[in-house]
Amino acid sequence: AGDIEAGKAKAAVCAACHGADGMAVIPGYPHLKGQNEQYLVSSLNAYKAKQRNGGLAAVMQAQAAMLSDADIANLAAYYASLK
Amino acid sequence: AGDIEAGKAKAAVCAACHGADGMAVIPGYPHLKGQNEQYLVSSLNAYKAKQRNGGLAAVMQAQAAMLSDADIANLAAYYASLK
Repeated sequence: AGDIEAGKAKAAVCAACHGADGMAVIPGYPHLKGQNEQYLVSSLNAYKAKQRNGGLAAVMQAQAAMLSDADIANLAAYYASLK
Repeated sequence: AGDIEAGKAKAAVCAACHGADGMAVIPGYPHLKGQNEQYLVSSLNAYKAKQRNGGLAAVMQAQAAMLSDADIANLAAYYASLK
């Protein structure tokens, strides 16, 4: 599993849309707080591989493109850890 | 917005993977409880239109293919309403 602290640091970028606590203030974006870690990894990889399209997917594809596998694991661990 | 009661009835099918209370017991599936309504509509439409691929997307494409626009609105309203 990822490193929660490293994920927290990396999540500073994500907070703009997904909220500082993982609760998205913008209705079209998902809450990430307490989401399943494995699902978060699978979703981020799908955006990174441009397998997820439609809706606001393009925004996330651009974000995910900048993430390494370690970043993805750490971010997933961080958001899954939020209760 | 959708009809929460109609969504609850329709959600019986979804509970198998996403849990009776919208908390997925299977790690690879997302929790839906309290998720943003607009995001749920956008995601279901993306699965229905086969715009979302990768990971377990194929499973959801098959499910979403059976849903009408009203079903999608009602399911989104229902899951967003769970606190």
